[in-house]
Formats: sequence, C-alpha cells, structure tokens
Amino acid sequence: MTDLATTLQTLGQNARRAARKIAAAPGAAKARALRAMADLLVESRLAIQAENLRDLEAARRRELAPAMVERLKLSDRAIELMAEGLRQIAAMPDPVGQRTATETRPNGMQVGRMRVPLGVIGIIYESRPNVTIDAAALCLMSGNAAILRGGSEALHSNLALARIVRQGLEAAGLPADAIQVVPTTDRAAVGLMGNMTEYIDVIVPRGGKGLVAALERDARVPLIKHLDGNCHVYVDNRADLAQAQTIAINAKTYRYGICGAMETLLVHADVAAEFLPAAGQAFEARGVELRGCERTRRYLPEAKPATDEDWAAEYLGPILAVKVVDDLDEAIDHIERWGSHHTDAIVTRDLNHAARFQREVDSASVLVNLPTCFADGYEYGLGAEIGISTNKLHARGPVGLEGLTTLKWVLLGEGQTRG
Amino acid sequence: MTDLATTLQTLGQNARRAARKIAAAPGAAKARALRAMADLLVESRLAIQAENLRDLEAARRRELAPAMVERLKLSDRAIELMAEGLRQIAAMPDPVGQRTATETRPNGMQVGRMRVPLGVIGIIYESRPNVTIDAAALCLMSGNAAILRGGSEALHSNLALARIVRQGLEAAGLPADAIQVVPTTDRAAVGLMGNMTEYIDVIVPRGGKGLVAALERDARVPLIKHLDGNCHVYVDNRADLAQAQTIAINAKTYRYGICGAMETLLVHADVAAEFLPAAGQAFEARGVELRGCERTRRYLPEAKPATDEDWAAEYLGPILAVKVVDDLDEAIDHIERWGSHHTDAIVTRDLNHAARFQREVDSASVLVNLPTCFADGYEYGLGAEIGISTNKLHARGPVGLEGLTTLKWVLLGEGQTRG
Repeated sequence: MTDLATTLQTLGQNARRAARKIAAAPGAAKARALRAMADLLVESRLAIQAENLRDLEAARRRELAPAMVERLKLSDRAIELMAEGLRQIAAMPDPVGQRTATETRPNGMQVGRMRVPLGVIGIIYESRPNVTIDAAALCLMSGNAAILRGGSEALHSNLALARIVRQGLEAAGLPADAIQVVPTTDRAAVGLMGNMTEYIDVIVPRGGKGLVAALERDARVPLIKHLDGNCHVYVDNRADLAQAQTIAINAKTYRYGICGAMETLLVHADVAAEFLPAAGQAFEARGVELRGCERTRRYLPEAKPATDEDWAAEYLGPILAVKVVDDLDEAIDHIERWGSHHTDAIVTRDLNHAARFQREVDSASVLVNLPTCFADGYEYGLGAEIGISTNKLHARGPVGLEGLTTLKWVLLGEGQTRG
Repeated sequence: MTDLATTLQTLGQNARRAARKIAAAPGAAKARALRAMADLLVESRLAIQAENLRDLEAARRRELAPAMVERLKLSDRAIELMAEGLRQIAAMPDPVGQRTATETRPNGMQVGRMRVPLGVIGIIYESRPNVTIDAAALCLMSGNAAILRGGSEALHSNLALARIVRQGLEAAGLPADAIQVVPTTDRAAVGLMGNMTEYIDVIVPRGGKGLVAALERDARVPLIKHLDGNCHVYVDNRADLAQAQTIAINAKTYRYGICGAMETLLVHADVAAEFLPAAGQAFEARGVELRGCERTRRYLPEAKPATDEDWAAEYLGPILAVKVVDDLDEAIDHIERWGSHHTDAIVTRDLNHAARFQREVDSASVLVNLPTCFADGYEYGLGAEIGISTNKLHARGPVGLEGLTTLKWVLLGEGQTRG
C-alpha cells in the first residue's frame, strides 16, 4: 500500500470508530461542541489568518486568477460568518433519534422508524475553506463522522480550521476523530476516497463538473450530488405576463453562477408576441445575451440562433437560450430531453397546467410562479445545506440535516412469534 | 454493439418512454391493469402451464435438483396465489402524487414534497417465475416501468407471464412496454443491465449471494439489495428467560432459509448458566447443531467449538453459533463487528437497555422482544415487498411500494423573487 493509501486507511478507521460515538451523542453535546468551535474561531482569528496567508501567498506566486485568490481569503467577516453558521446549526433540533408514528400490527407488535445518521460522510470540495466549517457542523449535528478533503490551494487554512474543530469536539467530550481533514495535497486522495466503501458511507462532492464527473465514473461509494443545473422557466399561455417577466429576470440575473440560475426560457406560442419583445428588452438592459429558436427570433431579431448545444448548456453566465413551444406538452418534453432534473419552473394561473407540470416534470424541485434561483436549503427552510442532489434515490434537491440521516425500522413486542 | 446489447438498449428506450406515461397514470388505471392481469392469469392457466412444462422438462433433462424443479413449477395453486397477489396490490392506496404537509415560508411561498416514482426499475431474479408477476405488480402500482430478467431455466414461463402482463396493461389503456421481460438466457444480460445508467434508475437483485456480489462489484446503476442476513438475538441479563427461549427458537426455526433467520445467539454471562442448558436442549430437540464459544461450552459441552467463521456465517440451515458476552456493550460490539446490518433483536425488560440497543445497533431493523424472522414486508404492514435492503441511502429493511418511490420538492408562489 502507498503512504497515501495508508494515511487514508487510518483516517477511515478513526472515522468508523468515532462514528459510533457521535451517532450516540446527545444533541446537547453536539451543540456544545459547535458553540465551542464558534468561540475558538473568533479567539484564534489571527492564528487562522496567519495560516490562510500562507495559502494566499502561494496562490499569488502561482498566479491564480484574482477571483480564485479572493475565494480563498479568510477575512474577519468570513470568520464571523463561519462562527455565526456554527451557532445557527447548534440551535437546530437534533434529527437523530426522532421516531415516526408507530403502527400496532394485529399481533400487537409495534412497528415504527427511527432517524439515525448515515455513518461516515466524505466531503470533497474545492478552494473555499469555509466549507470545512460548514460541512463539519452539518455532519456533526446529524450525528455523522466526516472525512473532509478540501482544495490543495487551501490546505494550510483547512488544517488550521480542522484544529479548531478538534478542540471544539474535545471541549464537549466528543471524539476528536469525528471530523478529520485529509492532510495532503495529493490529488490521488480523491480517487482513493471514492472507493473506501468499508470506511465511507456516502460522498458529497462540492466542486466543479470535472470533479463530480470523475467521481461519478470511478467511485463505488454512493454520491449525493448533481452534475448540472440546467434549469428552465416555462411561460404558459395562461401566465400573468408581468409576473412572468419578473420571475424570468430574477431566475436569470439574481446570480449567474448558482446552479439554480435559469439557462433556458420556454415561452408558449400564444403569448410569445406579447411577452418576448418586452422581456428581451429587459434582459438586454441587464447585459444578458439571448440565443433563440427560429420563432423566438421573429420577435427578438437581435438574438443569435440557438443550436442543440444551447439547449444543453449550463452557461453559469449572462447568456440565455429562448425557445417558443406549442403547448405545455412540448415544454415538458423539452425539459425532460435537455434538462438536468435539478430545478424547473412554470408561470401560469391555470390550476391544471400547474398540476400537470408539477407532476410530470421529473426534477428535484418543481416550482410554480417562482424563479428557479430559490433552489437553496435556507430558502426552503432547511437551514444550511451540504449540497443539492439530483439523485433519485435518497435525498433530492437541497440536502440539509435530514438528508444526512436515514430511517431504520424499530419494532417492539412482548414475545410474539411468527407462524 | 452486440445483438444482446442492441436488444437491451431497445428495451431500455421502450422502458424510458413508457415510464413517463406510467408515472402520470391515475391509480384507478393501474389497479384496473392489475385486476385484468389477475383475470387473464386464471383464464390462461392451461396455456401458461404448457409453457411452464417446457421449462420443467428442460430442467429434468438437465438433472436439476428436485427442489429446484419444484420452485419452477406453476401449479394451479401457484397461479391462484399470483392472481390473489395482483388483486391485493391493486387494492392498495396509490403512493404516487401524495404530498407531505407544506410549510409557508416568511415570503409566503409554500414548500412541500410530492411522492413520485423512481422511473425504470430493473429486477434480476432467479428461478421462481412468480417473481415476474409480483415484481411487475409492485413496479406498476408505484408508477414505475420495469425490465425483468428472470432465471434462464424459467424463460418460457416468464415470457408467458410477460404476455399476460402486456395484455393487462393494454386492457387498461396503459403502455404495454411499461413491463418488459428480457427475452434471452444469455448471462451477459445481467452485466449489461448493471451499467445501463441511462435507461435504468435502480436495480433490485433477488437471488443468491453470487448474483448480488457480482452486481455490487460491477454495476454502476444503484442497487436496492442486501448481501447477507447474519441476524442476532441477544438475551440480556434483564430478559424474561422463558420469553427469550421462545423468541430464540422461533428466530432460528420458523424457517431456516430466510434472510431474517437468527444465525448467532448472544447471551449475557449473568444468565448463561440458567438460560443455556434449557435452550440448548430445545434447539437439539429440533435438530439444530450448536457451535459455541468457550464459555458457552461450559454449559453446553455437546456444542462444537465456534471459530471466527461461525460468527461471520449465514448458515441458512439448522446450525446456530452461540456466544456468551459480558454485557450489552460486548453484545453491540459483536453485532457491529460480525453482523450484516440486516435485522437484530434484544430480549430484555430493561427500558434503558432496550433503548440503547435500538439506538446503537446500526441495522435496517432493530427488534425488542421479538424474533428476527419477523423481518418481512407483510409482517411490518407494508404489503408485498420487492426485497429487503441493507443500504444506508434510500430504503432500509423491507421495501414495499413506498421504497420504489422518491420525494421531490414542489413549491408554489405568487411571483416572489429572491434577493
């Protein structure tokens, strides 16, 4: 075994051992650990920033793009936000040990389910070191152990934050190995983690498409992930067109870079003549480049012609594909063919159209009269999220504490026998 | 592409197309299809049995074990039971489209979840042709399309049953391709199905350990499965010993061959002297061979010495491993080390011991004062089950209609915007 494989195996064994203790830890102890981490973060600000500076200087030496360097930076404000996040998660109800209603079977035995942690969670992320704290807090509060593998350009920052996390766990009498950071920049660690089925129960990749696609191809550990966020807004023939324009503009321009940003706008043919010229003007006023189908370009002659690549694209930038469709069926067909099953929206006042769209669009989130950019754990009321999932099994959409747990069956009897 | 790959791709494309229609089909239509299949089964009994006879004769020519031949046989009674099973599933409430309670967010938007099918389900099973009907019924009622791959020795029977299923679907106006049987005995079909990620959303393997292990190793489509059922009963120092004996005997001897059968009995040291001699006698009276740890053999000198292989074994037969443990912790440690996270039970009158066991034993089902052989969808009140899962993600334990569905987020607004 290589040194790296040995290192990871040790992390795995430590995590598996710690997982049993964390799973059984009372919510109060977990909350105490999180609050201790918040205090320690604030107290150790200068020490953390000293380590962060090493990463920042290395990044500048390697001439990383200024935006990348900025994402690495642990400013005073960034540290305050992490501490605030820890305190918010500490205040959430403990999901572990919750029981569903029980059913009493004809033979008198009681059948119910209990919420329990998944076990050991691997988080693989890029650049932003604050993910170390956010992920640690979510995994811990949901009763899981975690192995965190951050970006190599943030290693010193991540290790400094990992020390805070360990101290917080110890202060609350919890096993320090419950949250561990992989202490190496070796890229091979990602591939190894993806196949540690004995030690890791699920991996949440938080990073670019390349990372997610590589894990999807090679990992045997199950993933909670999405690859693309190719989100649609469909303006129905029964839409309130002023509302539709507000929704479309917000869905695209709230933030271009989020996975819930609208990438294709679908418009019913009956309202295209009325809707598109005004909406097109509004998009252009905001600097959004439009690419349209043939019918779209009748109303928006300045739009470039759209190709199949545009229907498939996740631009994550100020470009929008626009297509005129004949009816609700064509809209749903288009979304099923080209979409990524992430988040799609209809604008309509027609109850039947809304119901059909909600039922038939097979996406993690289906919205009626709302912009797709709402796809977010805080907005849904889950609190912080570990990621957004387009999986069909287990959690779909924004994944909060509940998505990091599972239900097991618990039965209570008085010596009943079978047969 | 090989002929087989082309055949499977066609099945996959057909299934994907049919899946959208089945997902949107009303519960009444699905129930109508299932009742039509039940009627057709009974009416076509002789034709089905003629095809079944071809499989039976081939099996006898190939000198299959008589028990295997028996499992292949579609007797009048077997056909009646299949028809009855179809009618029972037709009478169950449609899980598709059910909505959870919604939450109204501060901005007024309503956030809830809707139960929807998984999409296309692959079922890979061995010998018993009745699985064709059971699996078809569960997949259909949960709104899924299915690709069924039965044992090669049952191909004629399975194809005859597949025709009934198609006719039932057509009679109810549903797409006949919703349920398809792989029309070949080529074993390579299993490996190909396991990697049809584009067309199959989840595979449920129902067969021997070899099949499940091969899929676990090679498939990229997610599985709902268990590999082993190494189940434990722990007799606590606070157990009612008469009840403990009843439970232990039933857990082992209700049926040796089911995955919920007890394979190891754990006994607290304080009650071993009182419990083991009587229990040992009862097991021996039923022809169960005992294999014990050193301390066990003090009370049961006729037991053979147990080795690590016995703690790991899923005997599926009249053999039982027995171990004396010092306390609840050692019992839990043993189960976590050697068990298969399937179904484990404690016998105790102590509330705290029961609570700790339920919380800390990380198995799909954890039972208190009940034998492990209760691990079954009908017993839990789920109705028919497609299988039993030891997965941590998605469904754990017996998987019924609900386990073949997933929840998507549905949001309703009035043009709210973000930011």
